[in-house]
Amino acid sequence: MAPVDGAMIHDITGPLAINVMKEMGGGSVFDPKKVIMLFDHQIPADSISAAENHVMMRTFAREQGIYNYDIKEGVCHQVVPEKGRVKPGDIVVGSDSHTCAYGALGAFSTGIGSTDMAYVLKFGELYFRVPETIRINANGKFQNRVGPKDLILTLAGDIGADGATYRALEFCGNAFSEMDIPGRMTCANMAIEMGAKAGIVPPDEKTWEYMRGRTEVTPFSLASDEDAVFFETRNYDIAKINPKIAVPHNVDNVVDVTEVAGKPVDQVFIGSCTNGRYEDFAEAAEVLGDNVFSEDVRVIMVPASKAEYMKVLKAGLIEKFVEAGALVEAPCCGPCMGGAFGLLAPGEVSLSTSNRNFRGRQGSTESFVYLSSPATAAASAITGVITDPREV
Amino acid sequence: MAPVDGAMIHDITGPLAINVMKEMGGGSVFDPKKVIMLFDHQIPADSISAAENHVMMRTFAREQGIYNYDIKEGVCHQVVPEKGRVKPGDIVVGSDSHTCAYGALGAFSTGIGSTDMAYVLKFGELYFRVPETIRINANGKFQNRVGPKDLILTLAGDIGADGATYRALEFCGNAFSEMDIPGRMTCANMAIEMGAKAGIVPPDEKTWEYMRGRTEVTPFSLASDEDAVFFETRNYDIAKINPKIAVPHNVDNVVDVTEVAGKPVDQVFIGSCTNGRYEDFAEAAEVLGDNVFSEDVRVIMVPASKAEYMKVLKAGLIEKFVEAGALVEAPCCGPCMGGAFGLLAPGEVSLSTSNRNFRGRQGSTESFVYLSSPATAAASAITGVITDPREV
Repeated sequence: MAPVDGAMIHDITGPLAINVMKEMGGGSVFDPKKVIMLFDHQIPADSISAAENHVMMRTFAREQGIYNYDIKEGVCHQVVPEKGRVKPGDIVVGSDSHTCAYGALGAFSTGIGSTDMAYVLKFGELYFRVPETIRINANGKFQNRVGPKDLILTLAGDIGADGATYRALEFCGNAFSEMDIPGRMTCANMAIEMGAKAGIVPPDEKTWEYMRGRTEVTPFSLASDEDAVFFETRNYDIAKINPKIAVPHNVDNVVDVTEVAGKPVDQVFIGSCTNGRYEDFAEAAEVLGDNVFSEDVRVIMVPASKAEYMKVLKAGLIEKFVEAGALVEAPCCGPCMGGAFGLLAPGEVSLSTSNRNFRGRQGSTESFVYLSSPATAAASAITGVITDPREV
Repeated sequence: MAPVDGAMIHDITGPLAINVMKEMGGGSVFDPKKVIMLFDHQIPADSISAAENHVMMRTFAREQGIYNYDIKEGVCHQVVPEKGRVKPGDIVVGSDSHTCAYGALGAFSTGIGSTDMAYVLKFGELYFRVPETIRINANGKFQNRVGPKDLILTLAGDIGADGATYRALEFCGNAFSEMDIPGRMTCANMAIEMGAKAGIVPPDEKTWEYMRGRTEVTPFSLASDEDAVFFETRNYDIAKINPKIAVPHNVDNVVDVTEVAGKPVDQVFIGSCTNGRYEDFAEAAEVLGDNVFSEDVRVIMVPASKAEYMKVLKAGLIEKFVEAGALVEAPCCGPCMGGAFGLLAPGEVSLSTSNRNFRGRQGSTESFVYLSSPATAAASAITGVITDPREV
């Protein structure tokens, strides 16, 4: 049993957890300061029942003394690190599968079900089996317009959707030590797509710099011991990685973009907890250049948080994207999980920078979701067909 | 029978009209250049069926040679004038009740049902009874932070929801001749809220200036004849108008804002075809000043078109509003009709710059919608309670 340093609930799974906690007898949460609440999946409320869930959660927050970020701050996995609600070495759980994202900061964080979350809310601890570790040793330098998303898609393709089940991925090598925090977030976020319990980048100078002004921490080492035993070690030369794309309907169906280049797309989504940060939009803007987006593509852009939105706006990118034909929406999960908006009709094709392309994930079960980097998404939004970003 | 100069269909009522036209034998539309198609109510698609409707309409547009503005341009009643698809003296119909908005430019425009629209799409004409006219003779100068929305709400309160049924409102006097086009749009837009078939401002220099660069027109007079007979004439001194608010659940339940001041609001919406233009956001920004929005209010802002969005953005207002705590969404109808987002839970209160506050309009039938100007909406978003904008 391990005490948790943080427990995150959002508008989809939070109501379930709260209701189970009430069924367990209710009472007070273990520590209101360690409970993180926000709404990101269905905001502003996209149905009366969503609005009712929000009201119920606001009431719970008020009664329990929990600070609620409500609909204003953005996507949980961006807001939690941004607001200093997680730090290296923490154990954080969230009732959302991509909670593994905080491994980017050297935390052990993982997604749990709403019933487990009810137990955590009440008792502040949870049973964990210590996972074996798969070490990813990635070195070298990315080609131009190739980056962290292409690397993590490569890993997903190699390891497979269940190749790391209940294991931890340890992200090492100069590819990671030289990678900025947003890139690390992209990679850690998708650890669950290989079944991993966690995906951790050992904290370093970049991590401590990120923490500055967010929460107080004294730097320490979390590097693996010299004699640590790994389930396996995988070595990568990232210079050899080409732009990658996950094709329908599984995240591990990964091929080079060139293999499916020319396929028409109906919608391009740039955003989500995986790729909704300033750096992702800057990458898209660099590819866009002086082009405009194809008339035949619906280009939807959703920065992952208010802070990221402001960075994108102040850099002049919202103006640039809207002029070029995109819709820029307020921070939220957006089309990622086909909930609030951006749903697909049968036969339609989406190219998305998010993390899952399961059948029906973004609308009709007869639609098709491809996953790529922001660079590939932007290139394809210009041409209207899946396009290698090195060729725009 | 009168030939129509334009027929507008959007994503909600368009599919019905197209299907009825097909049932009538299909074939070609009367003139693809006179059919205006766009999507604004459910964009980006908020359900699989919305996405299917969009696909069906895109296919129809392609087959018929109709230009489709799709999801990129904004709300129909802003896009049609903005793109020069209506001009003074035109007869324009739309399968949306607020089509009367184009009266702001001196057009006879009116909303029709989808079955009538099917007939228009096929034959390009429709039966009209020439409406009697109610002349609104409004003169004087508005008080500070009082404007067109307060005037039209005053009229709605006085005339009543059915007081102008199948009549035309003629908007005259220096209040209208000195009013800018966006203000005229606000007023003409709400003619239907009194049952009027049309609400027309005679075209003048401001109108011809607005038309410049949009479509070619030669100025002419549409002023009523000296000996014209009116059903009635109503005189207003606009200096006497205080900030007005329509209270639930009818548009003609109009009182001074001071009468309901202090009532807590959960959500404030600034946008819609009624008040979603740059001038409306500038008015809100002036009231906002250096304040921030209340933590307890969800402030949702949605410019009515891409062009208006760009004006608001370039003036630095999106930055200002988001910093102050608002969500700014891409151009669409937004929470106005409780379709895509911004729905209310039972018991919740919305203050909205849109045009209808019918029971259930923005979500639960047990929620409450108030209608006001952008100035009143902004003032109330700051304080968290309904507030006279002259008191902020």
